[in-house]
Amino acid sequence: MSRRQPDVPALVEAARAGQPRAVARLITLVENADPALREVMERLAPYTGNAHIIGLTGSPGVGKSTTTSALVGAMRARGLRVGVLAVDPSSPFSGGALLGDRIRLIDHALDDGVYMRSMASRGHLGGLSWATPQALRVLDAAGCDVIFLETVGVGQSEVEVAALADTTMVLLAPGMGDGIQAAKAGILEIGDVFVVNKADRDGVDVTMRDIRGMISLGERKEAGQWRPPVEKLVAEKGDGLADVVAALDKHWEWLQETGTLQQRRERRAAEEIEAIAVRTLRMRMGTLDGAGDLAALAEAVVAGEQDPYTAADRIVEHL
Amino acid sequence: MSRRQPDVPALVEAARAGQPRAVARLITLVENADPALREVMERLAPYTGNAHIIGLTGSPGVGKSTTTSALVGAMRARGLRVGVLAVDPSSPFSGGALLGDRIRLIDHALDDGVYMRSMASRGHLGGLSWATPQALRVLDAAGCDVIFLETVGVGQSEVEVAALADTTMVLLAPGMGDGIQAAKAGILEIGDVFVVNKADRDGVDVTMRDIRGMISLGERKEAGQWRPPVEKLVAEKGDGLADVVAALDKHWEWLQETGTLQQRRERRAAEEIEAIAVRTLRMRMGTLDGAGDLAALAEAVVAGEQDPYTAADRIVEHL
Repeated sequence: MSRRQPDVPALVEAARAGQPRAVARLITLVENADPALREVMERLAPYTGNAHIIGLTGSPGVGKSTTTSALVGAMRARGLRVGVLAVDPSSPFSGGALLGDRIRLIDHALDDGVYMRSMASRGHLGGLSWATPQALRVLDAAGCDVIFLETVGVGQSEVEVAALADTTMVLLAPGMGDGIQAAKAGILEIGDVFVVNKADRDGVDVTMRDIRGMISLGERKEAGQWRPPVEKLVAEKGDGLADVVAALDKHWEWLQETGTLQQRRERRAAEEIEAIAVRTLRMRMGTLDGAGDLAALAEAVVAGEQDPYTAADRIVEHL
Repeated sequence: MSRRQPDVPALVEAARAGQPRAVARLITLVENADPALREVMERLAPYTGNAHIIGLTGSPGVGKSTTTSALVGAMRARGLRVGVLAVDPSSPFSGGALLGDRIRLIDHALDDGVYMRSMASRGHLGGLSWATPQALRVLDAAGCDVIFLETVGVGQSEVEVAALADTTMVLLAPGMGDGIQAAKAGILEIGDVFVVNKADRDGVDVTMRDIRGMISLGERKEAGQWRPPVEKLVAEKGDGLADVVAALDKHWEWLQETGTLQQRRERRAAEEIEAIAVRTLRMRMGTLDGAGDLAALAEAVVAGEQDPYTAADRIVEHL
């Protein structure tokens, strides 16, 4: 972790000029929570806000990587610069968990207009809510027109990551009971575009019907509301790809026309600011003279001599 | 949510006297993040620290509920008072997701010596790390000798919940590829006792071998280290139950003899204190005059006029 001090102005300039190594280096600074990040973000700020951030979620086995790869190809064919950020919220232990899954994206590995990066969540010190928006910010400022934010696994972390996207695409596959899974995990509420991949398999109609039924159940009737479309796709062959891209475009237009984009981004920025502030405060708690205090308070709580609220008050008072 | 002010001294007394409704009411206060919690925890503090908290994790389908039910029966047969807390970290939206899964535990529903409760995580305002330890504290102070902390789903949230237990039991089943899943999710690192349930099925020996192999790979060689046992179980029939209970007992003894229990509990208490402190600070950020400031700062960040770090500094300065 201890490297020489990065030359931030040069790195930012190189990233802005489209040099993949500079982009990669900046995201590594994010992963390592490098102190230089403050200056990085200050310099990147004026160049952010262009990219359409598309979240991609779905259970293992639905073909997320193949679909991402197909979508990257479609966006590249339109001359757009594309970023792919894959986040693994299920692995607190290592940064390498995603390598196996990334093989599909090797098609695009030598394409200058595509940045790919996987990122493991780093414990709980701010976690996803802290690092992911900043990595997105780097890709955005580096000139990506579209960024795919892919998450592995299901559950609350996935919902959190999806909340960082402008458009959330939920990927399903026939015969996996995904409809029910989706409802359980609250994915229905977060999906802007639903895609049933592997649509050449048996059971595709049942899955389409299930998911449409659930959408109309949850539908809000007001005018101007977005009605999530459900598209069929065979990502491996590219069948249905144009429809999926059109659905993503349409949602992007809707976001802009209705002012929803601005609202979502302001809410996200507020959460990002809060996450950084909380991290700052946590670091102060840990480094406080302070560190000894916390240990002593914990000992008193274990002994039943003090309750955790009173102990927390003591910590907050010291900040 | 708006109820009359709870009579905390009376509630705590009733919970201490073993009244299930009082215990349930106290856990509801935790779920609702009721302001009265501070007084509740203050009064409960002297009565905590007795219970052996056993975390139960495993993929869906391995038979967690059946196993919990069997273990509850075994502990009750020894005259112990038992708590069951089921946490669903995958559902940020509702508190009812677990009802279906809880059917197995109905065997014990009329038993006075068993408290059962399921709890959904409530959004991200401190989340699991905030509410779960306090619910455990209630059950502990209410006189439970053993508390089973059962989690639904896999991933980081599960790892977090498991970290709240004294003993973490990882449940597997033959032929589900659980070995690999376990390794991926980092469950191997957190398991103190491994149990292969449904051990009357094909493939049990492969699963046993896989998991033993992975444990010995990760094994620390120092003397006094705990070597996680791997036990076979057929929870539905009770086969192997005595061995599982013996393994849990043995780990409990090891925790106490080596001082590991004290260490783990102090680390957990420190995290609990920190989580409460962070929540307090977050609430201040949100209610600050303050709320308007955050919105204005978020707008500036979206416009690229300000970076999130500088914005976060402004928030922290105001605290």
